[in-house]
Amino acid sequence: MADTGITTRLTRRLGLTHPILSAPMAVAAGGALAAAVTRAGGLGLIGGGYGDAGWIEAERAAAGNETTGIGFITWRLEGRAELLEQALAHKPAALMLSFGDPAPYAPLVLAAGVPLIAQVQTLRDARHAADSGADIIVAQGAEAGGHGETRATMTLVPEVADMLAREHPQTLLLAAGGIADGRGLAAALMLGADGVLVGSRLWASAEALVPEGLHRAALAAGGDDTLRSSVPDIARGLDWPDRYDIRTLRNAYTERWARDPQGQRAAGPAEADRYTSAASTGDATIAPAVVGEATGLIHDIRPAAQIIADMAQQAAGLLSGGWRRDEDV
Amino acid sequence: MADTGITTRLTRRLGLTHPILSAPMAVAAGGALAAAVTRAGGLGLIGGGYGDAGWIEAERAAAGNETTGIGFITWRLEGRAELLEQALAHKPAALMLSFGDPAPYAPLVLAAGVPLIAQVQTLRDARHAADSGADIIVAQGAEAGGHGETRATMTLVPEVADMLAREHPQTLLLAAGGIADGRGLAAALMLGADGVLVGSRLWASAEALVPEGLHRAALAAGGDDTLRSSVPDIARGLDWPDRYDIRTLRNAYTERWARDPQGQRAAGPAEADRYTSAASTGDATIAPAVVGEATGLIHDIRPAAQIIADMAQQAAGLLSGGWRRDEDV
Repeated sequence: MADTGITTRLTRRLGLTHPILSAPMAVAAGGALAAAVTRAGGLGLIGGGYGDAGWIEAERAAAGNETTGIGFITWRLEGRAELLEQALAHKPAALMLSFGDPAPYAPLVLAAGVPLIAQVQTLRDARHAADSGADIIVAQGAEAGGHGETRATMTLVPEVADMLAREHPQTLLLAAGGIADGRGLAAALMLGADGVLVGSRLWASAEALVPEGLHRAALAAGGDDTLRSSVPDIARGLDWPDRYDIRTLRNAYTERWARDPQGQRAAGPAEADRYTSAASTGDATIAPAVVGEATGLIHDIRPAAQIIADMAQQAAGLLSGGWRRDEDV
Repeated sequence: MADTGITTRLTRRLGLTHPILSAPMAVAAGGALAAAVTRAGGLGLIGGGYGDAGWIEAERAAAGNETTGIGFITWRLEGRAELLEQALAHKPAALMLSFGDPAPYAPLVLAAGVPLIAQVQTLRDARHAADSGADIIVAQGAEAGGHGETRATMTLVPEVADMLAREHPQTLLLAAGGIADGRGLAAALMLGADGVLVGSRLWASAEALVPEGLHRAALAAGGDDTLRSSVPDIARGLDWPDRYDIRTLRNAYTERWARDPQGQRAAGPAEADRYTSAASTGDATIAPAVVGEATGLIHDIRPAAQIIADMAQQAAGLLSGGWRRDEDV
């Protein structure tokens, strides 16, 4: 694993070779992916997702002795703080909370001496998370796959960076949303981030727990082919707070229901079963691939180690002047 | 005007000092702003907007002897190609078309020997614009102020860059949407752009034709305080194609109508008059400031020359290693 020379406050604080964390994607980010990302010089996060304690335990075991972190969907922890305690007992390299107020859980994480990463989608929430004691803020733009809100990475990152510089100069900042190669990593550093959190590109890795049919659909799609909707959440009967929707590929199923949430709700459990089954078998005509606009930058399914190495190397090249293009007249 | 050393294919082709164009913002981008941007080393574009020939003529005169370009709203040119002919007769430094199919107008522009800039919001339209002969593609993300679509700058720019590299290697690429300082410019170059088109930051300049009340509202707002809607278009009775909406600040008026377009339409001409009057007097409680998410990065109204110089200088610093932050433990 070559040191490509991108050292930042993040690599120094967490002892990483590359300023790259993998997103703790529910279902897709298991122990094998997290371990591979760490082994490649980044930090891998297991997706604690909806809080299936058995799944989490199995995936932590799958990571073997590799250092990994873990991420949870914050609003799903309500009344289930024992999940957090179980996770902290294993001394993860970091604990990430997304989608909800991290304040009630921050003291527990900080008392355990585990770095707290808070993912946010607005400046307002970034300030609140930093005020609550988060060590690292992830500013996630709407171009990201999976759940999120409306603001874009391009403006959210520098605006949060300015706020942190004034109010919390010790708090680190990661960019998330739309970052799938070295160009995105280099751009994020220019915008004021200390590193990046990568979702879609690592969803499209050999180690991700993703059915082949969904991988195939994502490779065939471009960035124009995604949408934000609540279709997958209604299909699964998940009670996500209104402010969050989820970016996926468009498919026949999202086209059918995206503008008719009441109709989808009325269709009820039969649809839910059909959806859940499709998601596990990889029927991309029903369960869409959960990827962001960066799917248009992804053209293969590769081992995470190659993805991380290439991203770091490309970014290092750009940062040392490779962004200049020759006039080829 | 110092040469800060950011030369790109764009600066060489158009003979600019800085790889920065000003957006031809309808109403706001008159001759004084365009001339100031050109004088500062970029290229200023007059906003041909909805095609008021008298306004355009007056603003071209206001630009004096300075070299400027001009931009039109493509769908508004239908049946009014004489506007284009009038503009081309003055040999603008570039002619930009946004929001609609540029193909019908491209031959006229290219025959006049005027560089054709086509602004697009999707990969699909980028390919079509390049196939139609555009010399420069502007990939505009949804974080931009004013009209646009849904894709983000962070992913659209590299995806279009890859397409152009394969299919149209001579065609230049500008990034637009969310770029308000040197961080945004540097990030855009990392993503594969040859330069940037700047809207909101220059809307908030001393030369922009913007009532003081709207400038004040934008300075007070953060990036969380904007939304995309059709409220201003319905208010003005403008028949924009469905695919485009417009990002503005949120205000009492957009909160009232954004979720009730039918109600707004039913309210009719009385509302339209009230809106138009507010837009000209600068009543920001009714007519919202037309700015993008980058409003959170804008903290003053300054001469365009200072804005351009600072943006170029900050970007040059970042590109020569200034992105590294010291650990201030």
